[in-house]
Amino acid sequence: MKRSERLVAMTNYLIEHPQQLVSLPFFTNEYESAKSSISEDLTIINQMFQQQGIGYLQTIPGAAGGVKYIPRNSKEKSELFIDQLATKLEDPERLLPGGYLFMSDLLGDPQTVRNIGRLFATHFSDSTIDAVVTVATKGIPLAYAVASYLNVPVVIVRRDPKVTEGSTVSINYVSGSSRKIQTMVLSKRSLKQGANVLIVDDFMKAGGTINGMKSLLEEFEANVAGIGVLAEAEDEDEDRVVDDYVSLLQINNVDIKNRKIEVHRGNLFEQ
Amino acid sequence: MKRSERLVAMTNYLIEHPQQLVSLPFFTNEYESAKSSISEDLTIINQMFQQQGIGYLQTIPGAAGGVKYIPRNSKEKSELFIDQLATKLEDPERLLPGGYLFMSDLLGDPQTVRNIGRLFATHFSDSTIDAVVTVATKGIPLAYAVASYLNVPVVIVRRDPKVTEGSTVSINYVSGSSRKIQTMVLSKRSLKQGANVLIVDDFMKAGGTINGMKSLLEEFEANVAGIGVLAEAEDEDEDRVVDDYVSLLQINNVDIKNRKIEVHRGNLFEQ
Repeated sequence: MKRSERLVAMTNYLIEHPQQLVSLPFFTNEYESAKSSISEDLTIINQMFQQQGIGYLQTIPGAAGGVKYIPRNSKEKSELFIDQLATKLEDPERLLPGGYLFMSDLLGDPQTVRNIGRLFATHFSDSTIDAVVTVATKGIPLAYAVASYLNVPVVIVRRDPKVTEGSTVSINYVSGSSRKIQTMVLSKRSLKQGANVLIVDDFMKAGGTINGMKSLLEEFEANVAGIGVLAEAEDEDEDRVVDDYVSLLQINNVDIKNRKIEVHRGNLFEQ
Repeated sequence: MKRSERLVAMTNYLIEHPQQLVSLPFFTNEYESAKSSISEDLTIINQMFQQQGIGYLQTIPGAAGGVKYIPRNSKEKSELFIDQLATKLEDPERLLPGGYLFMSDLLGDPQTVRNIGRLFATHFSDSTIDAVVTVATKGIPLAYAVASYLNVPVVIVRRDPKVTEGSTVSINYVSGSSRKIQTMVLSKRSLKQGANVLIVDDFMKAGGTINGMKSLLEEFEANVAGIGVLAEAEDEDEDRVVDDYVSLLQINNVDIKNRKIEVHRGNLFEQ
């Protein structure tokens, strides 16, 4: 195979298999090329990935080694994306009764969701994560986007048990904002004991839901390696019960009377 | 920029922007290269995409023209993937009370979910589709995977209204298998009147849920351009109420006593 053809095929393969170790013999067999040619190809790809701000190739030496594509947004790319998203969220048309913001259109756009996933995956790319955990419903697409770039499975906590889940573990918790007692269930089969998990959700106010997930995960002896929320908002009535989280956006000063919303970069950008 | 570098950058760009028209001037500006060089690059990329069985580049001529990457699995790739998935589902360990199958682990794997999305996107790549519609919870990741390859938004029907959805339209329908009356709601803002929609779900027995979605979509004067389900199973007690669908898998003869399950290719592969 010619270099030009190999570069297209290898770029596609690496992008489709993020965070996955690919051995050099795999490429030499697949494209019937010498090891030295493949190495040169990988150097070109690595340079271009970095130049395009989409990540880099990690080389693992030795007999069991190979290369791994680590998706990683450049700082400029991340900031540009989040500032555009913040501007969209400041549209007063989004205001709903109770000071909530309509976000379903943005969360319904696969490209936006993938970009959000890239930001979290960039932040947590050096952490050991075995699974991404979220709670139904709105966090699900975000969790898959992150998991896809981290190459780990998604585990979905539900509000109600379903027969197709098999036996489940359930907990009751107090919701932060509404102070109502709520239930969360997780299928016993869905998470191994002692797994390192990343919690992902779309929105956090007091943090009751995330705290509920943490309690449920304790039943699985899981280690919470990180918590990522798309947007956080202040809760006047209550102190936050979760503190070790990163957010992409901060929603401040929702002024229903004057129909004004301020949305800023979240704390992920302060670090 | 050198050809080798351009090929990496352009391959990445096209894969990240499926079903999106990219003008030649965009590439010539972005990579500071002559139109003739870009054209040659696109020919190489097109050939390799076809050879790798991942799709092709569609050329739209004229001043407003350009190229579009159409993701499309080769027949061999699709059949290989679905046969492997069928084998995994035949594992008797998956049997749950009531003859249900545990599938959450497979639906929790982002790579599997993306592959399922590619199969549906391949099948519906020539249809006019403005949005992918699914119902919470299990259909959500599949819907995003399909939508991502078709470059259209996802619209999620819920079982219960939520304050963050704004005003909603709701319907009651009779579930096919349990014959219970259930509710479905869809945010008014989430779908334009008269849109062409593709319905995607994980599982279909009698088809009551899909039928419910169809009724709800009528309230939006939507045109159902297609229905895709990952797995269909026979319902001994009731005739199917939906017939114009494609399935990737058929679950037959779930024999609880002898712990045997037969899973075959769905009707998508008969067409």
